[in-house]
Amino acid sequence: MRTFHATERSLNVEYAIRDVLIPARKLEEKGAKIIKLHIGDPNKWDFETPKHVRDALGRAVEINDNGYAESEGYPELRAAILKKEKQKNGVDVGIDNCMITSGVTEAIQSLVAATISPGDEALVPGPGYPSYTEFIKFFNGKPVSYHNDEENDWQPDIDDMRKKITDKTKFITVINPNNPTGALYSDKVLKQIVDLAGEYDLFVLSDEIYDLMSFEGTHHSPASMTKDVPVVLFNGFSKVDLLPGWRMGYMVFSDPLNCMDEIKEGISKQLRLRISANNPCQMAAIEALEGPQDHHEQINRKLKERAQYMYKRVNNIPGLSMRAPKGAFYAFPRIDSKHWTNDMDFVLDILDNCHVLLVPGSGFDEKYGKMHFRAVFLPPLDTLGEAFDSIESYMNKVA
Amino acid sequence: MRTFHATERSLNVEYAIRDVLIPARKLEEKGAKIIKLHIGDPNKWDFETPKHVRDALGRAVEINDNGYAESEGYPELRAAILKKEKQKNGVDVGIDNCMITSGVTEAIQSLVAATISPGDEALVPGPGYPSYTEFIKFFNGKPVSYHNDEENDWQPDIDDMRKKITDKTKFITVINPNNPTGALYSDKVLKQIVDLAGEYDLFVLSDEIYDLMSFEGTHHSPASMTKDVPVVLFNGFSKVDLLPGWRMGYMVFSDPLNCMDEIKEGISKQLRLRISANNPCQMAAIEALEGPQDHHEQINRKLKERAQYMYKRVNNIPGLSMRAPKGAFYAFPRIDSKHWTNDMDFVLDILDNCHVLLVPGSGFDEKYGKMHFRAVFLPPLDTLGEAFDSIESYMNKVA
Ligand SMILES: Cc1ncc(COP(=O)(O)O)c(C=O)c1O
Ligand SMILES: Cc1ncc(COP(=O)(O)O)c(C=O)c1O
Repeated sequence: MRTFHATERSLNVEYAIRDVLIPARKLEEKGAKIIKLHIGDPNKWDFETPKHVRDALGRAVEINDNGYAESEGYPELRAAILKKEKQKNGVDVGIDNCMITSGVTEAIQSLVAATISPGDEALVPGPGYPSYTEFIKFFNGKPVSYHNDEENDWQPDIDDMRKKITDKTKFITVINPNNPTGALYSDKVLKQIVDLAGEYDLFVLSDEIYDLMSFEGTHHSPASMTKDVPVVLFNGFSKVDLLPGWRMGYMVFSDPLNCMDEIKEGISKQLRLRISANNPCQMAAIEALEGPQDHHEQINRKLKERAQYMYKRVNNIPGLSMRAPKGAFYAFPRIDSKHWTNDMDFVLDILDNCHVLLVPGSGFDEKYGKMHFRAVFLPPLDTLGEAFDSIESYMNKVA
Repeated sequence: MRTFHATERSLNVEYAIRDVLIPARKLEEKGAKIIKLHIGDPNKWDFETPKHVRDALGRAVEINDNGYAESEGYPELRAAILKKEKQKNGVDVGIDNCMITSGVTEAIQSLVAATISPGDEALVPGPGYPSYTEFIKFFNGKPVSYHNDEENDWQPDIDDMRKKITDKTKFITVINPNNPTGALYSDKVLKQIVDLAGEYDLFVLSDEIYDLMSFEGTHHSPASMTKDVPVVLFNGFSKVDLLPGWRMGYMVFSDPLNCMDEIKEGISKQLRLRISANNPCQMAAIEALEGPQDHHEQINRKLKERAQYMYKRVNNIPGLSMRAPKGAFYAFPRIDSKHWTNDMDFVLDILDNCHVLLVPGSGFDEKYGKMHFRAVFLPPLDTLGEAFDSIESYMNKVA
């Protein structure tokens, strides 16, 4: 019997955030207790899905037929989403412009599959959430990363962005608040991005999954800054609604001049092929949008305190430095120490010696992420304290 | 602003089962009541998710953290699945050989993406469930359909299968009980398929999503018929467990000689990239496997009665004929009438004139499905009666 070889496409997929779990699991098997700062899952810490939303799923499974839903998504949920998008971002579109996906992840996958032919390019933030890069490669495209400038609190560098546009570029990806840097982009820079897209006939893919997790300033959507440039909003329930395990995401097309009808059709066809997203969870997710919203304030209070704590701790550790995060729940510290020549070695050393799991910065961009690491500041102060005590004393020794 | 063009890959996706909804919705908007025999969703009729399973989701959402799950799936669910597969099919493998997916659909997508490089071929049943064909095309492969012989109650034609194997063939897909024909394959033919795969160093992809919906005979897995040929079992909770809307599927690798490690890695990498399947639904799905199972008997009693009813009705309508289904909930009647020259016209005429929604047979295979249609026999006898009364009187007039 022969060995069956896997495709290049599949073996090339890298997702640093979960790939680092493999060495961590080995340590755990030997009995080590690891503080896991690698994964962007608030529910693993003291953030809990609000009770009224959990109850809504208990009710939904009773009244829902638990059969397949409409491929484009449950109409009432789409209506509730469009109400939010209109209120928050002034995006006022018909229901056909909203599609429900299994997490924003499925939105990324199906939009990339509908837009990127072999050899096509798309701009992605460097550093940025790896799914964009990976799905673009998966579909034989070329992700081109634009510089997010650490010196400028990780704001996008518009000149660099402009330089990277070619006649193969299909769209500009914006992730704001940003994963992995925690940056909140200024209105000025967002407007410049929209204008650049307009100038070069591109659309903007705006990942707003952390929109309401902004604790220094307010999130604005690029869709609210243009009357003609098409903006595809990606958002979901994994972060601000504390529902990562429900796998609920959506896309909304703000496309005033109807330039994207064919893309929408290419996405709809994929959504029909995969039949539907989770039906009872779609029904219950309405409650997350229309029920009480006070948990957002509580979340942001915690995040702000923890971000500030981490900022102070990291900047006091020799060989490390970081910018203050303003949104999401990630920090992206720089490894200044000359003890390491690459960030993967640093992460493995911290794992082995401090039992703290980080993600190597190169996993977010080979060039603009290198010699950095990503850590979440989701845990309570005492756990963060424990993690950074351990890192600090180790760094005092070696760095 | 330019028009954005969608990729060929995405526009080429066809999923007849959902694509036919578009003309039906137009009729509904004009007030017509359509009897929908197009979609394989038992929960749209008098089949209800068992109460103990629905209750399990209500409990799960309380005790689950509702965060991301393990990418390969919830360990307790995988253990429960492997227990079933061992009991039913004698497949006795470790937990790494079981992965949870968002429906069998995601299993199809990720296995095809991990095995089919551009130009590679895979054998699929003709007629057969379209996802296989479509995902193979989507990833630039070539689906090659083998003849399922209507004269022989839609059993696979092994000689035809053998003829269609080339040096580009990667695997043989078996769907049993079959969608769209309702055939239950004989042990003899299954053994021949396994032997053929062994002879040509191929693996067998065995879609067993209707395994316990066999009302004339018992389903056997090809995995139970070999000690060396690798068989990948696909199964899930959409059909026999009446949970289509939960989007729960799985794959189990029966790979005694470890030929498929690289393929498993190519799939794992994709599963990590998409983070996880639905977490509370995974927890609750355990109840579907380990709780009371008496609904299976009730389901099969209903299906048998309805299959027999449809068989009698269709074979009494001039211009139509069909084989007796033995499993699943589909029949695949032949359009003998010379009034139509293609099955899409027939389906659209029946929709317009009888307000019954069928799926054109060509959607299941261009060659072996043509001049057929697929209908589910899920509705109660009175609804089926209404549908076939209407088709009968129409056919009496025109055919
Ligand atoms: C920027 C960004 N987009 C999308 C996702 C995917 O989230 P999900 O698939 O859970 O919606 C994440 C998850 O971390 C993210 O950080
Ligand atoms: C043979 C077969 N396989 C797979 C599927 C996909 O089912 P799901 O994604 O709901 O598990 C279906 C659905 O009709 C089917 O008939």
